[in-house]
Amino acid sequence: MSIVEDPNPRGGVLPDSAFLMQLVQVLRAEDSYGAWEDKSNAELLAEYVVTKEKGRDIPLMGDPEPETLWRLEKFYAAVGLRIEKETGCMAAPMMKMHHEGFGRIVLIAGRLVVLSKHLRDVHRFGFDSFARLAETGEALVAEAVGTIEIYPDAARA
Amino acid sequence: MSIVEDPNPRGGVLPDSAFLMQLVQVLRAEDSYGAWEDKSNAELLAEYVVTKEKGRDIPLMGDPEPETLWRLEKFYAAVGLRIEKETGCMAAPMMKMHHEGFGRIVLIAGRLVVLSKHLRDVHRFGFDSFARLAETGEALVAEAVGTIEIYPDAARA
Repeated sequence: MSIVEDPNPRGGVLPDSAFLMQLVQVLRAEDSYGAWEDKSNAELLAEYVVTKEKGRDIPLMGDPEPETLWRLEKFYAAVGLRIEKETGCMAAPMMKMHHEGFGRIVLIAGRLVVLSKHLRDVHRFGFDSFARLAETGEALVAEAVGTIEIYPDAARA
Repeated sequence: MSIVEDPNPRGGVLPDSAFLMQLVQVLRAEDSYGAWEDKSNAELLAEYVVTKEKGRDIPLMGDPEPETLWRLEKFYAAVGLRIEKETGCMAAPMMKMHHEGFGRIVLIAGRLVVLSKHLRDVHRFGFDSFARLAETGEALVAEAVGTIEIYPDAARA
């Protein structure tokens, strides 16, 4: 099986999205021991779907779970790789978490901050649906690509 | 006593340096309970002086001490404030520490990474002398000011 091919989509059909395929690739690259080989792509991405009902059950106290932070990092890693494919500029994430699920994440290409997001309620990081996950990822990529178009020299510095 | 005035410089005479005065100000601003009121400026900055001999005694194993990371953050906070005074651009630090004293720190103004440093052996963060501390700080400020002059639009975005 190729790294993103998914002939038997258990766990739901994924929307056709370059971002979702990139995210799957990022996640599968972490699977050094092949523990997820039997998982379909939709099963791999299932943890990113946090419906409103599911979210309400996650308390906003203390620091977010390490698994949640890990998913957040992989999400932005996928955004960075999509930016690179669209522009040729490598965009590296830097995240700073403060306490209680507040933080900031930036993606940096050359001298340019191509994306900057303040994070809150990271405990509940997730999306209503696969479609929403895809849309949000694509929108962030488009925003960053637009920023690079405004400041191309800084991005390529 | 004004926040940086130091009529009785115990612990050594500090070189005349805008950067050192900024760093003293940053440190004194953290002194909510007045615990350091009796300390001279040189005494406050003394922990930044790590001679080669002293450095060799600090093991490079595990993660750096929280006090060392705190000093590193305050050092770059002072760099950021000096940059703001020189250019009018607020430069906010973002630090990411990996394991074992490796990491990266960036200072961001608007959309611009005005300074980016990879860190290593952070356990031994310090300078040979007050003069070296001052020079290094001033050099980082000058580097960042130069970067802002190259990409003024991104810095003011």
